[in-house]
Amino acid sequence: VTVAASWVDIPNDSDFTLANLPFGIATKHGWSSPHVVIAVGRYVFDCNAALDSDLLGDLDLNASTLATGSLNELFAQGREPVSSFRCRVAELLRSDNTELQDRLDLVTEVMVPRSSVTMQLPFVIGDYVDFYSSEAHATNLGKMFRPQGDPLLPNWKQLPVGYHGRSGTIVPSGTDVCRPRGIVLDEGIPTYSQSKMLDFELEVGTFVGLGSALGESISTADAANHIAGFVLFNDWTARDIQTFEYQPLGPNLAKSFLSSISPWVVTLDAVEPYLVHQPRQDPLPVRPLRAHGNGAIDIHLEVSLSSALMRESGLNPVRVSKTNFSEMYWTWAQQLAHITANGASTRTGDFYASGTVSGTEPDSYGSLIEMTWRGERPLVLPTGEVRAFLEDGDEVNMRGWCGKGPERVGLGKVSGRVLPARE
Amino acid sequence: VTVAASWVDIPNDSDFTLANLPFGIATKHGWSSPHVVIAVGRYVFDCNAALDSDLLGDLDLNASTLATGSLNELFAQGREPVSSFRCRVAELLRSDNTELQDRLDLVTEVMVPRSSVTMQLPFVIGDYVDFYSSEAHATNLGKMFRPQGDPLLPNWKQLPVGYHGRSGTIVPSGTDVCRPRGIVLDEGIPTYSQSKMLDFELEVGTFVGLGSALGESISTADAANHIAGFVLFNDWTARDIQTFEYQPLGPNLAKSFLSSISPWVVTLDAVEPYLVHQPRQDPLPVRPLRAHGNGAIDIHLEVSLSSALMRESGLNPVRVSKTNFSEMYWTWAQQLAHITANGASTRTGDFYASGTVSGTEPDSYGSLIEMTWRGERPLVLPTGEVRAFLEDGDEVNMRGWCGKGPERVGLGKVSGRVLPARE
Repeated sequence: VTVAASWVDIPNDSDFTLANLPFGIATKHGWSSPHVVIAVGRYVFDCNAALDSDLLGDLDLNASTLATGSLNELFAQGREPVSSFRCRVAELLRSDNTELQDRLDLVTEVMVPRSSVTMQLPFVIGDYVDFYSSEAHATNLGKMFRPQGDPLLPNWKQLPVGYHGRSGTIVPSGTDVCRPRGIVLDEGIPTYSQSKMLDFELEVGTFVGLGSALGESISTADAANHIAGFVLFNDWTARDIQTFEYQPLGPNLAKSFLSSISPWVVTLDAVEPYLVHQPRQDPLPVRPLRAHGNGAIDIHLEVSLSSALMRESGLNPVRVSKTNFSEMYWTWAQQLAHITANGASTRTGDFYASGTVSGTEPDSYGSLIEMTWRGERPLVLPTGEVRAFLEDGDEVNMRGWCGKGPERVGLGKVSGRVLPARE
Repeated sequence: VTVAASWVDIPNDSDFTLANLPFGIATKHGWSSPHVVIAVGRYVFDCNAALDSDLLGDLDLNASTLATGSLNELFAQGREPVSSFRCRVAELLRSDNTELQDRLDLVTEVMVPRSSVTMQLPFVIGDYVDFYSSEAHATNLGKMFRPQGDPLLPNWKQLPVGYHGRSGTIVPSGTDVCRPRGIVLDEGIPTYSQSKMLDFELEVGTFVGLGSALGESISTADAANHIAGFVLFNDWTARDIQTFEYQPLGPNLAKSFLSSISPWVVTLDAVEPYLVHQPRQDPLPVRPLRAHGNGAIDIHLEVSLSSALMRESGLNPVRVSKTNFSEMYWTWAQQLAHITANGASTRTGDFYASGTVSGTEPDSYGSLIEMTWRGERPLVLPTGEVRAFLEDGDEVNMRGWCGKGPERVGLGKVSGRVLPARE
């Protein structure tokens, strides 16, 4: 990968290099409506301003596409128009291009400090499906939730197991999470109380760009034409609520209270240099689910945690997990093929999440229940505090990135702080 | 209940009496966009035309509320404004009111033959949750899917078990259902093939009108202020796909290919005379889920079936089930309280379904898998054809109604015909 130099000041190892250029939706004091923006270094490129300034050239772009407060209309056009859009922006930002660089009046219009905008949900989300595609995670959860049987059920290697979640409670990074209430067993008695086992789950989410009609199945080869891109996803989970409710129809209130995403949609074009082979699949899946080409993505993932006391003491967050997205058994392309294998339609803005990304070692697990083995081996924080599950005031940060230096393609971060239960 | 007479010709035992006045969204040749309509006898009352003709009087109604092609904006206002709207329409249609009756020019504008319009989805649907609230149904399915254990799991009487389903594949009555493909066990081998066990599920669905904010739990007492009304729901299910996929995270592709609703939203105001006590709950649920007042609704429900051969032979559909919605263990109010008990927000247009409505006797079961006990006791149709599950060409009709004569409040019907699998 050789990435052209930019006239924009991009810090070394920024998530948002010229190789990335992820899309988002931002609001800002003084803007009458949300704008479509692209992250670059410490700035965002304001697509609405660029369109008004005729900087987007001969892109066949309807202005209304950028005026809806979401990325839906832009990405509904499919992969090629978005690729062209992103290439045009890359061109404008290259050192050897003067169209924008030399127009100081326009630069101040179009290049907005990232610190001055507030990122919103990138898409109006349709259906949301959460998968369960890490073999290490599914094995760990199986051992804890069903200790009497095989940790992996017979379907797990035959299809990407997943379930629909609540799309209306997906929120952008930075939103606080209130400890939920629900029905839990208290000394064997079902009791409505606040969760005592609040957890995070490290995941990577995928938005659908171009939808598909009822009856149309998307092949693994064609999946790339239907996805908008990737974000980080924290699937907050109340383990005690989950334990009591989840049989036989799956998780519901244990997860529906809130889920958090990073706001920058990193395109498949951007991560293409980091596509790698997925783990070998044995048995070979049924034909519609078979992998096509390199479906895994070499995304480094990290989770860090800080307690209120750590922050008061001036201590940095402590890294509690380090793993890689490429270890997932089922890929985003196989997941999309599976969602549509029965002829179900998809809509622009549909969202699906990978399932918790866990490696095989405890320091690569993607959830606290795995790291602490349901509290048996609590984490010890630098303050001496112990953590079986999340406590009020804790803040969870997840980061993800491919590559390094000027070639780095980062997903940014998804963070959230735990507030006490309401009332 | 005493219902005023109407100047509109309403057939005896019509679902759409002056006591009902359900809301829907219709398209019609010659209309440039969908209209909000109210069913009355063989007509629909065209709310957009009535507003244009100043017939809605001093209702505080923004015209744009009716111009969005869905009921979302109208019902987002909450129960009271919709009640006033419906009362005003009832007033205009009463025999003793001449405002519309005597204006033949307006009557032809506003009263449109029901046969000339096409009903659409009433709401833009947000999240969809399917419950499992019939004790007889959950017991039957438990016996068949988990023969080794208790048919009802420990959580079943403690909370209304439910899961999120796919909102993007909910379609209006009359839409054909293609037999889905999926992964099923064929002599023990996971195989991608068309479902051989396609089934229906008789349910009643509830739309959310006034939404609720993140962190706000809706009490059973307040649920009435948050619901728009009721429809019939056919939760088509592929039992063979379900059997292989559903553990541990619940049903997904077995149901996501299509779900059908009746198009008329029958308000709580309309069914209020038919509210009755629900079955006694033992154990008493936790406080936020406890029943408030009469939460069950005395809705008669019927399912009828016809095969292609029956229709070719001029035979009427045969009734295969007759049951009553009032037998559900958990009510719509308890379900809404449960959905929000963890602080999850709700949006106008969110949809939740009761779960299959089954009585205790085989002729009151709400699905074929129960009636035929997974095919062990096939139905015999008047043509001599046998049915373990649905065959291509079969048509399923579900009807629901409260009361009779001029007081009848009917939900209309949801129907769909099975087409062969694609390709």
